[in-house]
Order: sequence, then C-alpha cells, then structure tokens
Amino acid sequence: MRLAIEAAEGVRGTTSPNPPVGAVILDAAGELAGIGATQPAGGPHAEVVALRLAGELARGGTAVVTLEPCNHHGRTPPCTDALLAAGIETVYFAVSDPNPVAAGGTAMLETAGVSVHAGLLADDVAAGPLRAWLHWQRTGRSHVTWKFAASLDGRSAASDGTSQWITGPQARARVHAGRAKLDAIVIGTGTVIQDDPWLTARTPDGNLAPHQPLRVVVGTRDIPKTARVLDDAAPTLVLKTRDVAEVIDAMADYPDVLLEGGPTLAGAFLAVQRIDRILAYIAPVLLGTGAAAVENAGVGNIAQALRFRREYVETIGPDVLLSLVPAMEE
Amino acid sequence: MRLAIEAAEGVRGTTSPNPPVGAVILDAAGELAGIGATQPAGGPHAEVVALRLAGELARGGTAVVTLEPCNHHGRTPPCTDALLAAGIETVYFAVSDPNPVAAGGTAMLETAGVSVHAGLLADDVAAGPLRAWLHWQRTGRSHVTWKFAASLDGRSAASDGTSQWITGPQARARVHAGRAKLDAIVIGTGTVIQDDPWLTARTPDGNLAPHQPLRVVVGTRDIPKTARVLDDAAPTLVLKTRDVAEVIDAMADYPDVLLEGGPTLAGAFLAVQRIDRILAYIAPVLLGTGAAAVENAGVGNIAQALRFRREYVETIGPDVLLSLVPAMEE
Repeated sequence: MRLAIEAAEGVRGTTSPNPPVGAVILDAAGELAGIGATQPAGGPHAEVVALRLAGELARGGTAVVTLEPCNHHGRTPPCTDALLAAGIETVYFAVSDPNPVAAGGTAMLETAGVSVHAGLLADDVAAGPLRAWLHWQRTGRSHVTWKFAASLDGRSAASDGTSQWITGPQARARVHAGRAKLDAIVIGTGTVIQDDPWLTARTPDGNLAPHQPLRVVVGTRDIPKTARVLDDAAPTLVLKTRDVAEVIDAMADYPDVLLEGGPTLAGAFLAVQRIDRILAYIAPVLLGTGAAAVENAGVGNIAQALRFRREYVETIGPDVLLSLVPAMEE
Repeated sequence: MRLAIEAAEGVRGTTSPNPPVGAVILDAAGELAGIGATQPAGGPHAEVVALRLAGELARGGTAVVTLEPCNHHGRTPPCTDALLAAGIETVYFAVSDPNPVAAGGTAMLETAGVSVHAGLLADDVAAGPLRAWLHWQRTGRSHVTWKFAASLDGRSAASDGTSQWITGPQARARVHAGRAKLDAIVIGTGTVIQDDPWLTARTPDGNLAPHQPLRVVVGTRDIPKTARVLDDAAPTLVLKTRDVAEVIDAMADYPDVLLEGGPTLAGAFLAVQRIDRILAYIAPVLLGTGAAAVENAGVGNIAQALRFRREYVETIGPDVLLSLVPAMEE
C-alpha cells in the first residue's frame, strides 16, 4: 500500500475529475508484478495500468489499491471487470468510494469470489493523495488549502512592503514543487499588482512542468494587461468579485485548490469557513511592523477566535511548517 | 550526569549569585552513593551536599558534576578540598568554570592525583541549568528570555483586547511552573494596568512557591497603588523608565530574567538586541485583528529583519513552542 500511495502522489494534479489513485499488483507468490496510477481523464485507471504491466503474472495474484475499485462504465470500463478478467483473487484497498455512481466494487468482486479487504492504511490515503478529491466528492466544493509564509510575529512583509525573503530556500522550494500537483491556485488582484508572480509550476531545471494548475485571480481591482499571470504558460481565470461563494462556485470543477492570497483574501475565506487546511510556514524572524498575514477574518473577541487542530509540525530548513485543519469538522 | 543535570534543574532560581549545579557521587564500585545540588547563597555547594550523603562510600569513588569544581575560598571552602578530603579519585564535569576567581579546580585536582575529565554532556548543561548563569558570567548582564503567546497570525489579543485564552491550559501551566526557577520577571506598566497580574510563582495546589522571582515593572506610566504586583507575596521593583539599558543595569544581580512584556516593551528589547532567547508559544488560532505580539523592533525592511536560530520545536497540547536564539551570537 505504501507503494500504491507513492504512485498516487506521483499523479496528483493530473487526473481530475478522476481521483489520483495508485495500484500495485502482486503475483500468486506475493512478488511485485506491476505498479500503476490513474492516467489523465479518459485514460486508464490505476488498476488497469498496473494489470497491463503485470500481464499473466496477475493470475491468482493480489491487487493493492488506494481506492475501492470502481464498478462503473464511464469513459473507461469498470476496474472490477479488469481485475476479474486478469484473474486477481485478492484485493486490498484503503478508502471506500464515496461516489454512489462508481461505488459497489466490493460487493461485485465478492460476488465473483474475490477476497476483498477494506481499510488498509485508510487514514494515510484519506489525509494524503485522496484528501482533496474525497472532500470534493463529499461536499461538492473544492478542497481549499491556504498557504502562507510569515514571521514569528505573523507578518508577511516588512513595513516598506519588502517580503523577499522571510522563509528560507528550502520552504520556498517545497511550495514551488507542490504547485504541479494542484488543480488551481488562487491569488488576489493586490498580489498580482504588488508582486506580479507567474504562479506557474516549474521543474527543478526551471522548465514549465507538464501539468499547470489553473491560475485564478480574485478581486475588483484591474490588473495590468502585462501581468505575468496572463501569459500563455498556463490557463488563467480572472474573477472580478470579492465574494468568496462566487469564487468557490467558479472553481467547482477543481478538487484541489491552493489559496495564496494576501491578508484580505485570506481573511474573507476564513470568515466564511471556506479554508479546509492551513499550511503555515513560520520563519524564525521578527519584523515588529508590516502587513499581517491575515486581516479581517470576522473575529471581534477571543471567544470568536478561529481555532484549528494541528495535523503535524515539521521543520524545513530554518522554518517551521504547521499543517492545520478546522477544529470543528463540518 | 543526567542525574546531576536533573538535580541542578531542581534548584534553578534559588542559588543566585551562585550557579545552580548538580553533583552525583559514585562509590568505588560505580554505585550511586549521593546526589546534591547547590544550596542558597552561603549554603554548601552541590559537591559538598552529595559528599555528605555519600559519607565514607565516597572514598575511592567518582564525582560527576555539571560545573568544574570551584577552587575558591568564598562564603564556603573550595569544593576541590572537599573532594580530596573525601577520597574522590575521579571527577567528571560538564562545563569549565568561566569565573576566573573560582576556576583552577581541574589543575588543583590533577596536581593532587585525581583523574579529571571535562566536557561530559557540556552542551546539555550549557543550554540547560547553567545557561543563564554562564551568560551572566560571560557578559556581566542578565540572560533575558522573552516569552510570548500568540495566534498563528502573531496576535496576542483580539481586537477588543480580550486575550484569555489564546494558548491551551498545558502551555499556561508550563509558563507558570517555570516562574519559580527565575530570578526576575519583567513586565510593562501597560500590562499591569490592563491585566493586573500577580506574577507570582505558585505550586500546583495554588500556594505561593518557596522561591519568588523579583517582579520588575517597567514604564513611565503610573500604576495603581492597588496593583497586584505591589502586594507582599514577592519583592517588586518599579522602574520609571523606557530605556532598556537602564532596565538591564538595574537587574545586573539577577542572572535569569524573563521578559513577559507587551509588544512595545518587547520591541524595545529586541531593537537593542537584548533578547537572548525567545520562547514563542504559538496557538493554532487565527484572529485577523488585534494587538500584535511585538511592535516597533526597529525593522524598516526585510533586510533588517531580526533573524533567530531555532533551538527546538515542541508541541504542548494544541500549541507549538519554539525556542529561538539570536542567529548571530555576539
């Protein structure tokens, strides 16, 4: 299952609207026979990729999959059929398919005599490669991660507006590497006007990554026609609104969304509880003046404080990364 | 040495101007024979306490001490004499004595035929129980730890001034338990006027701890005659100044000082580089408005940012504690 999770992580961002799934095939003797991950929409699912690699070795073997095999004729035939045709006798999967149209794989396989085991490393998969997709399936809305970098005193820039750099190169590299795995990145018009970022995903050698997330610019201010986010490197959606609900609606087809907005946009998302995860890169730096990382999140007193639950803390170079989720799950 | 460090931690805050030292005596067979720690000024040093417990078992045995045994006739006779009189044949210590008056213990013991080994767990001791005292010896100034609690966006209170509580009970209990180990606690007049704290160290059952740190109130504003910091539970020093150098001078006899000041006082200390350690309790909470943890630390742009080096990160209940020291040591 660890291998399957790794395979799924590898295709994250490239599979929408399908989930990024990983599959491993073991032969009848328990030896590795094939690994696969979901191909872009219309392409084969993870199980089929892995089965093709395994070929005849799959007969009498075991399939280990991060998501319950689908039982659904969509743009591709059901994976349950493929598993049966290949002669798989045992299936382990992590997370049950919440999609009523595609679910039912377990029952179908068991009826056909396959031994099916659910829940293997389910928490790792649900918090890992399938996190955004599961949220999107369950709520019908994008999973929004708000990423910010700030000093220990919560500031994202010095008093003169300079902000390069608060965090270290390791944290910045991490943020950059993560972009290729996203469906969309949202920023505010203020950030476009002030920082003029490209918001593209690049490989370590500086070239554009094969998959680019949708760039979404939110706000009522005009942005320059020459803004870098308007170049041809990736698609861009400009939403002339400050209404978070409108933004969420416009991104309904994008399961995994990263909010990189400034303090006002972040505050607006927080105020209406539309942040599903926070990735806070905190630098061991003090500024004492300058823009805060978040403004006007609708909190008037301490009882109204927006409280989150820590998922994990990690050190990245000199900085500390906190991953947080809302303290009260919906 | 771990036992000796633990013994030293136990008397931290009660030994000034002497260092909080721990000592362990092993008999000739290497079995534990005595443990001791520095008694309040004028009382016996750690080695003497441990030797008294060990009695005749010390003969031919080993002394393990966090600090090089003193070779100095002060209010008590030199520890080197006590070790020799007891028949100790081997000495391990962690940190050499930086005090020229008391140093020379190693040479004296070696001349007398004792086998002396320096540096055992020296880093743990230097960053642990002897930290403040070593800084005080080296610089002639108090070691100032700035402790603050803030939300993830760097705020110490909501917009209406409410701040109870941002951090969880575990972090608050930790702060309280640490007070009894300090020589002095510094706050600003603003905090006295707004929060009216007692600043006393209390035992878990609510009684006053036997050792109370000096309470120091800094600022030009008048504080009410009925302020709790002016009660009889502990001594209090009121310094009618905003000048950090004056405050530091007034505390010259107090090796281990905790700054619990508000944003302005913290900013003033930071601006003149008089913070030797930061203990930042960061809560997984967002406020979006309200007072920042620090103001006006003399930073005008990102190049002037006050940069620190992470000592450690620890999770305490829902919160995260960062211990930081200045990135450039003096």
